[in-house]
Amino acid sequence: MPTAILQQIQNEIFELPGAGMSILEMSHRSKRFEDILASAENGVRQLLALPENYHVLFLQGGASLQFSMAPMNLLFEGEGADYILTGGWSQKALKEAHKVADERGAKVRVASSTQSEKFARIPRPDELDLDANARFVHFTSNNTLFGTQWQSEPQCAAPLACDASSDIMSRPLDIQKYGLIYAGAQKNLGPAGVTLVIIRDDLLRETPKNLATMLDYKTHVKTHSLYNTPNTFGIYVIDVVCQWIEELGGLKGIARRNEEKAQILYDAIDATDFYRGHAAPDSRSKMNVTFRLPNEELEKQFVKEATAHDLDGLKGHRDVGGLRASLYNAFPLEGVHALVEFMREFETKNG
Amino acid sequence: MPTAILQQIQNEIFELPGAGMSILEMSHRSKRFEDILASAENGVRQLLALPENYHVLFLQGGASLQFSMAPMNLLFEGEGADYILTGGWSQKALKEAHKVADERGAKVRVASSTQSEKFARIPRPDELDLDANARFVHFTSNNTLFGTQWQSEPQCAAPLACDASSDIMSRPLDIQKYGLIYAGAQKNLGPAGVTLVIIRDDLLRETPKNLATMLDYKTHVKTHSLYNTPNTFGIYVIDVVCQWIEELGGLKGIARRNEEKAQILYDAIDATDFYRGHAAPDSRSKMNVTFRLPNEELEKQFVKEATAHDLDGLKGHRDVGGLRASLYNAFPLEGVHALVEFMREFETKNG
Repeated sequence: MPTAILQQIQNEIFELPGAGMSILEMSHRSKRFEDILASAENGVRQLLALPENYHVLFLQGGASLQFSMAPMNLLFEGEGADYILTGGWSQKALKEAHKVADERGAKVRVASSTQSEKFARIPRPDELDLDANARFVHFTSNNTLFGTQWQSEPQCAAPLACDASSDIMSRPLDIQKYGLIYAGAQKNLGPAGVTLVIIRDDLLRETPKNLATMLDYKTHVKTHSLYNTPNTFGIYVIDVVCQWIEELGGLKGIARRNEEKAQILYDAIDATDFYRGHAAPDSRSKMNVTFRLPNEELEKQFVKEATAHDLDGLKGHRDVGGLRASLYNAFPLEGVHALVEFMREFETKNG
Repeated sequence: MPTAILQQIQNEIFELPGAGMSILEMSHRSKRFEDILASAENGVRQLLALPENYHVLFLQGGASLQFSMAPMNLLFEGEGADYILTGGWSQKALKEAHKVADERGAKVRVASSTQSEKFARIPRPDELDLDANARFVHFTSNNTLFGTQWQSEPQCAAPLACDASSDIMSRPLDIQKYGLIYAGAQKNLGPAGVTLVIIRDDLLRETPKNLATMLDYKTHVKTHSLYNTPNTFGIYVIDVVCQWIEELGGLKGIARRNEEKAQILYDAIDATDFYRGHAAPDSRSKMNVTFRLPNEELEKQFVKEATAHDLDGLKGHRDVGGLRASLYNAFPLEGVHALVEFMREFETKNG
């Protein structure tokens, strides 16, 4: 979280300007909160250059609940959807889609998977086995565990449904290709506990009558995310974060920053045989950089010594092993320089 | 929100003691956050004197999602559940239960309703038409719109399933009677965006295989609310709030405080014919006090002048009209005195 944003939250926690009270005690039905909600929505719209026919929702339950809500709202009896598998998150999305499809007599297909290659890369365009009649094509834009990222959107005729939890607002999107984007806010957008959902108007349909009211996108579209009490504090922080990104030059500005940070780290990895990147070069993520050392013993030692140098959270996920550096929007350039310097010293001592 | 709690949040927003970072940037998988989660759970357990066989979950989606999750997890084919209707929230709960029951071939019955009396009272014990085989009996412990509250739990053989969103942690509960308690945190427990769910172990069953993973209580029981990223900030605040209640003497202490506050206001209402309470005296809520003035014109004027005196949020819900004063845990005794004094002055000028 950028220092400037924490500073603003701290300054305003007792009394939000123009509110006479804390955001933590404000009714979600108050005029002041409606202003915050409208400002946060506007911030998202501006940054992503959303056309009028896209709705912006602030929900709860994270991407994990969207794994279910997406097919519940978009996939009906006799219809099909394509899922592209690039890691653990897309596998979870597929599993929940299957439950919905089984219940409804719909079909979910795996259009491509790189599981046999340990998800070390994103599928090539010619590897996508797409159903021409698919209602949507689901993909995970960035894979936190494996450190891979789609460099541009999958090419397909159907609208894209994207889990963008780990790279939303890190770069511009070609929005016309998307029917649905969902993202937990906690990586680039705000605190944990808010889910951003963006849905194109023509994808909203009459859902089966027994669908829970809370699980129907139309409920939240009609009420502008105020059907029930939303995460008011989280939406307030998202509003502040959007303004911060805007001041950095919007998504183009933040993308340049993110590219620079990632490049420095990948260059350091490529400069030596001591470090090896996990992801295929053409699939490398700018958010999560995964790499290995010559052996696991050294990897453990690296994590331990790095932590002592205030370089936290570098241990890779158990499914991948090795190291993982997360370079989300708020992670500063100086942090990358510090990590690269530490890597050089560590190699000198242990290489 | 009590000043002491806002002060603590402000002090700790940059760096949570023992964490070296803000709660807003902390991984939900970190040891420090697991400690906070365990402490918040322990706080809830202590205050409610929960036996070992009750699970404490911190979910998202509010009571509105629990309206669906409760029957999805507790009501299977061929079974029935009883719903007691005491206001708009129980009606919404019933509506969602019907959807689940229709889908599954289960049955939902209305065991009692005071709708014909504008929900101005809680049903008497002899008015409850209960099914001896009901899997659970659902009720709303406090009705914010109408200002009514169950003075003690409904008498029935089946486990109670309770929406306690607006009076959780305001008084002790006879916990043995409950199978399920759920509550949005935003009234008495913390910020909006966390849902407290308490469920008795024997109510957890093998759910239908197509139930979404996120909607299955067992998912969250098994993972101690860490199946996916929870509302970390909200859980942190709940932990702080629980400690604050404990310091005030636990639920017995806070109940005495709440009784005193409500009594002062009801006494002021009963002392004159100018003000009339909406709720029947034996059903009066200690959280939301609803009352009328001689006519709507005076009611509008009352709200306007009260707001000018920093007495905010007194306008009643459109379904009930009149005035409504909410006296949640954090509302100070001095606030009640100020309101009562304003009421006397207003009557003197306009009575």
